[in-house]
Amino acid sequence: MGMDNKIIKKMNGLLTHASDEDKGVIYQILEGIHDKNEGLYTTYITSFMKTSMEIRNDVLIMSIPISPFLHNSVDIVHGGFTATLADTAMGTLVNRKISHEVVAVTSEMKLNYIAPGVGNELRCEAKILHLGSKTSVTEAKIYNDKGTLIVAASGSFYLIPRTKKKD
Amino acid sequence: MGMDNKIIKKMNGLLTHASDEDKGVIYQILEGIHDKNEGLYTTYITSFMKTSMEIRNDVLIMSIPISPFLHNSVDIVHGGFTATLADTAMGTLVNRKISHEVVAVTSEMKLNYIAPGVGNELRCEAKILHLGSKTSVTEAKIYNDKGTLIVAASGSFYLIPRTKKKD
Amino acid sequence: MGMDNKIIKKMNGLLTHASDEDKGVIYQILEGIHDKNEGLYTTYITSFMKTSMEIRNDVLIMSIPISPFLHNSVDIVHGGFTATLADTAMGTLVNRKISHEVVAVTSEMKLNYIAPGVGNELRCEAKILHLGSKTSVTEAKIYNDKGTLIVAASGSFYLIPRTKKKD
Amino acid sequence: MGMDNKIIKKMNGLLTHASDEDKGVIYQILEGIHDKNEGLYTTYITSFMKTSMEIRNDVLIMSIPISPFLHNSVDIVHGGFTATLADTAMGTLVNRKISHEVVAVTSEMKLNYIAPGVGNELRCEAKILHLGSKTSVTEAKIYNDKGTLIVAASGSFYLIPRTKKKD
Repeated sequence: MGMDNKIIKKMNGLLTHASDEDKGVIYQILEGIHDKNEGLYTTYITSFMKTSMEIRNDVLIMSIPISPFLHNSVDIVHGGFTATLADTAMGTLVNRKISHEVVAVTSEMKLNYIAPGVGNELRCEAKILHLGSKTSVTEAKIYNDKGTLIVAASGSFYLIPRTKKKD
Repeated sequence: MGMDNKIIKKMNGLLTHASDEDKGVIYQILEGIHDKNEGLYTTYITSFMKTSMEIRNDVLIMSIPISPFLHNSVDIVHGGFTATLADTAMGTLVNRKISHEVVAVTSEMKLNYIAPGVGNELRCEAKILHLGSKTSVTEAKIYNDKGTLIVAASGSFYLIPRTKKKD
Repeated sequence: MGMDNKIIKKMNGLLTHASDEDKGVIYQILEGIHDKNEGLYTTYITSFMKTSMEIRNDVLIMSIPISPFLHNSVDIVHGGFTATLADTAMGTLVNRKISHEVVAVTSEMKLNYIAPGVGNELRCEAKILHLGSKTSVTEAKIYNDKGTLIVAASGSFYLIPRTKKKD
Repeated sequence: MGMDNKIIKKMNGLLTHASDEDKGVIYQILEGIHDKNEGLYTTYITSFMKTSMEIRNDVLIMSIPISPFLHNSVDIVHGGFTATLADTAMGTLVNRKISHEVVAVTSEMKLNYIAPGVGNELRCEAKILHLGSKTSVTEAKIYNDKGTLIVAASGSFYLIPRTKKKD
């Protein structure tokens, strides 16, 4: 109850001065938490990013709308979000392909930022290059809705027992 | 006005069912937007992450508190946030060292995830390995508050005229 | 003349004790220098590695035979050679696609070593992901003659005037 | 015997036309094979590169002289050799620190090429960032004899039983 009041007070203070852009971001965040509670997402950040996903022919495609929430200080998508998108898409694909007794944990990732993240949507296509019993190697490409290649990424994952921590 | 009502309605709906964790995240986001409007941050994501920063002897130190907002589906810091932290710290340091006529844009970044992101705080130490007229190469290490090395990263940046897009 | 005698004396000493493997390596090196002098190669290392090359549909394919010369201490291809192969293939492709007034210089490269380099031959397929006026981003896959993926690589290149050094 | 004659014939043919540079390279290669047979090296390529090594305070320092053998087509050290040097230095250090029952195999490596490889010598300083029971993460810097930073590298290694192949 105390927390509810703190939130409502903070929100009322904010709304007085907030820009339309701020309000759009707030609404996007609230929708995200709602969708997470509905079971559509397992993490806050992916719920805020509004990731959607499909798998076609062993390629996992994860898409997000581009909105001000994603912007860096020069109004293109912050490289941290493309990194988050690539990591999530590659890791989700590996987790889909392995036994439920193990979980994929990122061991390393590299990203080449090729074009600025602008447009309506980012679409990440991830695929598995190698799937062993203890590790997996993957790659991903992120395009915008005009088909421009924005980011090329590669990553490795440790497959560890669900109950244990990594090496 | 319409948007304000939409937000308030969404918020009231949420608060009925939200967990304490959800409420903590909502409050953190609202604080972030407030702080961004106060000029403390230039992007939503860094305001939500509550980055703080200092420079000591050419090393930029950027810290963030660890909270549920940062968690992945197994309750450790999502690799996307450590990537965002490393990218932001390295890029901010380069921007501090160059003429105001140019801006640093990430060209590539690699991250080794060494230990799970757990604890109270992440602390990223970034430094410049090379600063030329058109490019810069940097590295960063992210530690938690116990001094455990969580992530080792390296990155390159293009230095481009403020008004132009990259190559 | 003095050097010729030194070489011949060294060679005679070696041949007394050299294994068949050593002799095979010596012969491969001498053939390499011969081929380099014939204009088939521009560097010693690629002449020793006996690289051969073709371009098909914008993919550059560079192949090398696997021989003891390439082995590391556990008799698989040394990761340095797969790195050399990937770097050379990606760089050669970029140089083919740019004006003769500029030359491609590697700015960074990352390699994932996926399977041990064993078999009769390594075959590297390189392609360009982005070609701008000042930089290029590429990727490469190295397979052995059984089609096993040995290495996945990505790299970036600066395109610099032929007469100047890089940034 | 047949092979000896083939080698001597090839050598005599070569020496007639070879440049002083070629002869220097041939001599360096013959010395390398000699030193390998004396037990100073375990691989041909490191014997040709004339690597020397010391360990100081957990940092492994591996040095090589710069000679025409290392040159790429624009007479600076080929990126493949700096990659080989970094990989060898990081891997050797890990192997020094682990039980003899396991061996370190490179899983991935990234290199930033910062300045052209020119001068008399390259000196690689490798250190371990993490050493677990199954993996290790390392980094290396390569300098020339003037102290210029030439390459910054990072790499990961799998620690596998000596008798088995990797994952």
